[in-house]
Formats: sequence, structure tokens, C-alpha cells
Amino acid sequence: MSNPQTSSSSAPERGFSDEEFAGRTERCQTAMAEAGISALMVCTEPEVRYFTGFHTPFWQSPTRPWFTVIPASGKPIAIIPGIGGALMRSTWIDDVRTWSSPQPEDDGVTLLVDCLRELTAEGGRVGVPMGPETHLRMPLNDVDKVRAAVGDFVDATDIIVNLRMVKSEAEIAKHRHICRLVSNAFDELPNLLSVGMTERQAFAAFRGEILRQGADDVPYLVGATGPGGIDDIIRQPSDRPIDAGDLLIFDTGSTYDGYFSDFDRNFAFSHAEQDAFDAYRAVWEATEAGLEAAKPGATTTEIFTAMNEVLKANGSLGNDVGRMGHGLGMQVTEWPSHTASDDTVIQENMVLTLEPGLLWAPGKAMVHEENIVVRAHGAELLSRRAAPEMVVI
Amino acid sequence: MSNPQTSSSSAPERGFSDEEFAGRTERCQTAMAEAGISALMVCTEPEVRYFTGFHTPFWQSPTRPWFTVIPASGKPIAIIPGIGGALMRSTWIDDVRTWSSPQPEDDGVTLLVDCLRELTAEGGRVGVPMGPETHLRMPLNDVDKVRAAVGDFVDATDIIVNLRMVKSEAEIAKHRHICRLVSNAFDELPNLLSVGMTERQAFAAFRGEILRQGADDVPYLVGATGPGGIDDIIRQPSDRPIDAGDLLIFDTGSTYDGYFSDFDRNFAFSHAEQDAFDAYRAVWEATEAGLEAAKPGATTTEIFTAMNEVLKANGSLGNDVGRMGHGLGMQVTEWPSHTASDDTVIQENMVLTLEPGLLWAPGKAMVHEENIVVRAHGAELLSRRAAPEMVVI
Repeated sequence: MSNPQTSSSSAPERGFSDEEFAGRTERCQTAMAEAGISALMVCTEPEVRYFTGFHTPFWQSPTRPWFTVIPASGKPIAIIPGIGGALMRSTWIDDVRTWSSPQPEDDGVTLLVDCLRELTAEGGRVGVPMGPETHLRMPLNDVDKVRAAVGDFVDATDIIVNLRMVKSEAEIAKHRHICRLVSNAFDELPNLLSVGMTERQAFAAFRGEILRQGADDVPYLVGATGPGGIDDIIRQPSDRPIDAGDLLIFDTGSTYDGYFSDFDRNFAFSHAEQDAFDAYRAVWEATEAGLEAAKPGATTTEIFTAMNEVLKANGSLGNDVGRMGHGLGMQVTEWPSHTASDDTVIQENMVLTLEPGLLWAPGKAMVHEENIVVRAHGAELLSRRAAPEMVVI
Repeated sequence: MSNPQTSSSSAPERGFSDEEFAGRTERCQTAMAEAGISALMVCTEPEVRYFTGFHTPFWQSPTRPWFTVIPASGKPIAIIPGIGGALMRSTWIDDVRTWSSPQPEDDGVTLLVDCLRELTAEGGRVGVPMGPETHLRMPLNDVDKVRAAVGDFVDATDIIVNLRMVKSEAEIAKHRHICRLVSNAFDELPNLLSVGMTERQAFAAFRGEILRQGADDVPYLVGATGPGGIDDIIRQPSDRPIDAGDLLIFDTGSTYDGYFSDFDRNFAFSHAEQDAFDAYRAVWEATEAGLEAAKPGATTTEIFTAMNEVLKANGSLGNDVGRMGHGLGMQVTEWPSHTASDDTVIQENMVLTLEPGLLWAPGKAMVHEENIVVRAHGAELLSRRAAPEMVVI
């Protein structure tokens, strides 16, 4: 495996070329043709952004639905609230259909149905992602109205998953950049944190440092401290002061140009028991096994097993996470999952996390996470590899 | 109307009392009984948090569904992935049912169906929010499986809307606090920004200042600069340098303890044309009319009309926003909307934005926004009232 520090440290360009969007759309259309789908409808932020480049935090507002439809050939069609018209017209998309929203009695439904009918008039079905890790960001009443008008949807989850799981070099460059910035911020942590600070102050210092390094945003930041160990890794900070002998975990999903990093680090304050050092070493070694296993042609299940064998040999009591890593992209977690039964075949240019978790004593969890891109020869680190021994602050 | 600066400036307590959650649940159950619903299912972050207090950014990960079911009586029931078990058990909820997720073949569906069947065995239907501004955060395939097992859902949108639209004093205190912090940050802007900075640097400076003031996060930040006017208010920053004669808008939804502020401010750099000052004054005056109109018993349509009359008198060319403000809460926008036909009756303790937008020349928009809580006597400002004349930096 190779190391990211050798790459240039300048920030990659924002956005993508029109060719990138055209390639995504054409690959989608090839898969649609095989599945008998002549109109594929998406309506979540990453899916709309993937095909159009439309990028705004306006999705924070749940009020208005946004639709993009991929026809059998030609560019995607955007069917969106008027407030987004100017921004969508600045993308590579030509056909932008807007309505004045919010309009509860018909919030884009007629425009969407008209478009879907038009595209399926000569045959072919309407495809929609309906499977694992998807949802429709529109009222269920409106889903029902659209189905009543255009017929049952074909499940297009696999088409979207297969497209998004494999990243382009331009996407990988964004991942590499945000992983470098967050690695820098983690490296600064021993200078920022000290016994006596509250968890909340520690969170604020870390968030501030990630932004100072140049990240656009820190949408995901969880962590906890605890005497000698940590029982819950998805918590928000409390006003608990950090004490000597505490362990700390920070896990962050930060973004650059809409692409995520997602890795964590564990630290001790002042001192730690040997069993905590041993648990740290076990998840670090498990990650080594994952790095070895992550090659094109292997499966997510083989990656899981490689890591799990190391954890079992180190006395794992199991864990509640349900997997040992996942895909990474425009969302902090994406398909696939490293589980005992996922069995997704690893392909070149997948961006993945390796995340072995060890319950080393009741109520004491140690979770370790790195980010990689899979190359022909195997794993290439995007995050800067954690120290093999737990750092004591 | 009264001014927020008179309140204490200390941060309100985190979380809510068990009594607050019990009150929410009981009010929900009263409405459920009237609607013949014996099990109400919710599955989005704000809805689950509203009833349980479960608060984590882990929702950023789309992988796992999370469910909460309100029975006809007694505490809500949480049906969630194992990774959230410890955190959910730390809330006021007693009945926490978990499974090992992700598990694509049955990601909580059996547990959910069993719970819904149990609660409807003696009669009563399953209620689910299916209307405007809602969605189900679970795969459509799983929605269909649940409906096939328990029968058609009753639309429970109104129950949720009526509960969430009216805030408790504890919720209002969180809104007031974040609005004060963001008001402070806006007041600092003239010291932070200058001609020659890029939009991106200006954004980073403002985000940093909001966090420095004590906000937990800045999930929503949009804005733009433009020579003499601004054409798009939902953009992300570019590398465009700010020039003398530019106008700037920043609009942010920032959070404290999971509650949002949502207001904007407009500035000019070095100088501006008289028509820009006039447009600013028009939206400021329109907001005054909105503040006067926002009283218990009035309607959102009356608030809209009051603001729109001022804009029309100032030569408005219309706008693409589709409304002139909205509810505010755990989401940056919530029900209701100030539109020409919304007609929601304003009640005491609604937290609202007033957001008149003026297209004063082709491609030149001026949007102004304030946050209020409606009291018996009328509007009480939560944001610090913008200056009546546009500030020049």
C-alpha cells in the first residue's frame, strides 16, 4: 500500500467537467437499457448532485421536493422548485422545469408525471431506487400519486449503487484532500486538548481545527470520553470534564466540495491501563489485515473476515456496529458494507472505510477507522495511518 | 414588540425534562384517539427526537432506518439499530427494541410490523406522516412491505404539524439563544470582511465567527456577492473576489442544542446605488408590516399579504422563493408557510421567520429575514432587528 503524503497538497479543483457528468449519465443509460427502464427518477441530494452537479445546502430545508429524471438518451432533466432554477441552469443540464414551490396541492407531481409519461410513451418502465440505504425524499402521498399515474416502479437501486460505488479520479482527489486535512487536524489534537477541558470544549476545538485546515464543513462529529474506556461511540458532547486516565474517541465525517472523509482516532489522557493499549493494538492490527485484504476481486465479506479473525484472536466480545466499514462518497456512509454476508465484489477505485470495532470488556469499545481507495495492486491509504500504539496526551 | 437583548445571555440548559416529552406524547395521543389511530410511526430525525430526545448526528449516515412508534397510551417505543441502543436507553424511553443493522434482507421491518400489529390488535389504524414537507426515511420496498402487513396507513401529518408548530418555553429559549449568537456574529461581519477577500474566505470567516460565538453547528450557510445586486440566494461560495460596489447576502441556519436560527443580512461594500438602498428599505419595511401582522388569530396568508403589499408598492417584479417566511424549529424550515393561500391560523408560541423577497430589477434580488416568536400581544423578535438602512462595509 502507498502513502498519501507523497501527493501534492494543493486543493483539487471544485466541481467536475461536463464530460464527467456525461460519462455518469451514459453508464446509467446503458444499465437502464439492460433493465428495460426508459426513465430513472431520483430525488435525494447525492443522487441529484451525482447526475447534475447541483450543489447547495438548501436541501437542509425539507419543504420542497427536487427531482431529476434520466431519460433513455440525452442529458438528465431537472424538475425543481423555482428557487433553484438559476443554480440548476448554471450546471451542464439544459432541460430545467420549475414550478412555484411550496405548493402543497401539487408540489411538482404533475410536472414529474408528465415527464415520466413522455419518456415511457414508446415503452420502457420508470425506475426508482427503492432498496437498501435509499429513500424517497418526497411525501408518501405524492409517491402514491405518481405510481397511480405511471404504474409500478422498477427497483433501480442496483443501477445507482454500481455507478456510485466506483469513483472517478476527480472524485478520489476530493476524498484524498479532505482526508489529508482531517489527518492534519488529528495530528494537532495533542496540542489542542488537555485534562480539565470539557467534552464540549474538546469538540469545539477539534471542529475549529478541521475548518482551519481548510475543510468546507464538519457535518458529522461524534465522540466520547470515559474513564479507562468508552461505551458509546455515536454520542454528542457533554459538559463532562476530561480526567487523567480517560480514553477519548473522535469520529468525524468532514467534507471538501461535497465529498466526505470518515475516520476516527483514539487517545488516552495522562495514562492508560495495559488492556486499553492492547485493545488499541488489536484494532490497529485488524486494520492491517483489512488493508491487505482490500484488493479488486476480493469481497466485502473477505475484508470483514480478515479483520474479524484478528479481533476474535484478541478476545472480542462482539460489537453493536453491525459492520466493519463501508463505502464513502458524497455521503458519510455509502454502499457496500463489510459484513459477514454482504459479499459485494471489490472493484478498482472503490473508496472504502475499514472500521474494526472491539468490545474488549463490558461497556468498553475500541473502534478504529481508516479510509482507502482500492487500486489494481490493493489498498491505497487516503487517511494518514494511525500510530500503531495509542497516543497519550 | 419586545427586544431580545433584555433577556439573560447565558446558554439555556441542554435537553428537555421528562415532563416535556410526556406532554408531547400525551398531546399526540389525544389527537390519535380523535383520528382512530392506535399506533403512530415516525422515522425521520426531528420526529424521533421530538418524542424521545434521541439526539445524534449519526443520522448523516443513510444506511440504517430508525423507527419510533407512539402507542395509544404510555411511552413511545423505539425500534432502532443496535448501534443506537445505549444512547436511546439514556433517554426517557423504556421500551427500546434493537436489531443488528445493516441487515438488508430485514432492516427492522419484522420488528416494526410486530410492534404495529400488537398495538392495532384491539382496533385502531396505523398513522404515518405522509403529507407536505414529510417523507419516510426508509426504503420504498420496506414501506410497501409494512403496508402489506399492517394495512393502509392513515395520514398523520396534521397531528405532527399541530404538535411541532407550537413551541414550549424550553424550545423557545434554545431558539432565542442561537438567534442571539448569530446576531452577534452578523454584528461582527463589518470587522471580518473587506474588499479583496474571496466569497469562500468570507464564508469561512463568518462560519468561524458563528462557532466562536458558541453555536453548535452551522448546517445551513448560503450567500452570494454581486456587482450592484445578487441574482441567486441559495449558492455556495465561489472564488470570486469581493469588489467595491458589491452587494453581499449571507443567510444561515445555525443550531444550538438541535434548534435552528434562520435569518439573513445584506451588506454593501464601499458604496451602493440608491436603488439598492431603496430595495433594502423596502424589504425592511415589509418586515415591519409582517411584525405587525403576526398575532394569534391572524393567518399566514394575512402575514404574507401584509408584507406583499409593501413590496408591490415598491415595484416588486415577484420572486422565485414561493413564500415569505415559514416555521422554524428542529429543522431550518418547518410548517407553516407564509403564502397567498396557506391560511394557517397563527397561534401563541409559534416560532416563525418573516422573509420578504423583492426582485427590484431583472437579476437583482433582495431578501430580508427575521425570526420571531408569536406571543399573546404579537411578535417578539428572536433575531436582533436589522438596521433600517443597508450597512456599507
